[in-house]
Amino acid sequence: MPHITLNSDEPGIRGLFRFRPETALPLNELAEVLLCGESTLSRGERELIGAYVSALNACRFCYSTHAAIAAVQLGEDLVLVEKVRADVARAPISDKLKALLGIAGAVQESGQKVSEQHITTAREAGATDIEIHDTVLIAAAFCMFNRYVDGLDTFAPDDPAVYAARAQRTDGYLAVLADSLRLG
Amino acid sequence: MPHITLNSDEPGIRGLFRFRPETALPLNELAEVLLCGESTLSRGERELIGAYVSALNACRFCYSTHAAIAAVQLGEDLVLVEKVRADVARAPISDKLKALLGIAGAVQESGQKVSEQHITTAREAGATDIEIHDTVLIAAAFCMFNRYVDGLDTFAPDDPAVYAARAQRTDGYLAVLADSLRLG
Repeated sequence: MPHITLNSDEPGIRGLFRFRPETALPLNELAEVLLCGESTLSRGERELIGAYVSALNACRFCYSTHAAIAAVQLGEDLVLVEKVRADVARAPISDKLKALLGIAGAVQESGQKVSEQHITTAREAGATDIEIHDTVLIAAAFCMFNRYVDGLDTFAPDDPAVYAARAQRTDGYLAVLADSLRLG
Repeated sequence: MPHITLNSDEPGIRGLFRFRPETALPLNELAEVLLCGESTLSRGERELIGAYVSALNACRFCYSTHAAIAAVQLGEDLVLVEKVRADVARAPISDKLKALLGIAGAVQESGQKVSEQHITTAREAGATDIEIHDTVLIAAAFCMFNRYVDGLDTFAPDDPAVYAARAQRTDGYLAVLADSLRLG
């Protein structure tokens, strides 16, 4: 049971979007720009950063959602995402992505935990200023989304098929929101 | 020195807004709705929640900014905000606001730290579902803003007059952003 009475039985953050469309809009605009907007990081890489931070925050709804989207966008299955979650250093991903996940992991603890060494490692692996900026903001944004979802104790389905179905939609966060509010 | 090369010498989050206007817009739209939009919580109360969470995250730029805005909006001086920061239970504020700050403090640690007891205490003090919702999201959003500002190691001025001057603007976040980008 969520801490507040929602106006739908939509799970996780989707129930909160239906409850408060005024805040849902900028939240989804942020996700759209950060995760689907123009970038030298692929959508899959950016979703993987979000899934990783959600795992660190133990947010089951957000992790399950963004792990499934990351897998689809990367053309991989969930095994890769689970490998990243278990051990970034040994996961079969690029050194640049490992370094960016190192920055994201620091941000999850606190902004002050991002060190010069994190930044140097990322630069040496080829990360640009804007990629570093976006990684910090993606990680920070998931620290918000995770706290929003769990702070109101929303419902997270157990069935992986729910998250797999959502991940098949590749048209972005604003389109999904518009459908959800229209159906509401 | 910030971790990345910015395109202005604006301090704190304002330098990041100038660097990446695409993400600045939804971030400011979110702040506008949450902190200045229609609500049964006053602007001062909402800014106080943001300042309190920023203090818990030890984000000097955000705390100084929102403490100054909270003081102006509440018609108080900074002493009240410092009292809240030092000891919510003994601060001269309403029981409802104390209970909402209790929820915000839990969210700052983790979404999972918000307990039924936090919610019951807030309800008994008169908080509504939407006030509880907005408190959780304000606290979560400041966990994002604080990590964004400090994760990129932006500059925070020492001079309190900088924050006091910003707090004199009462026309909201989108108006301030528009001016900043126009001057850029």
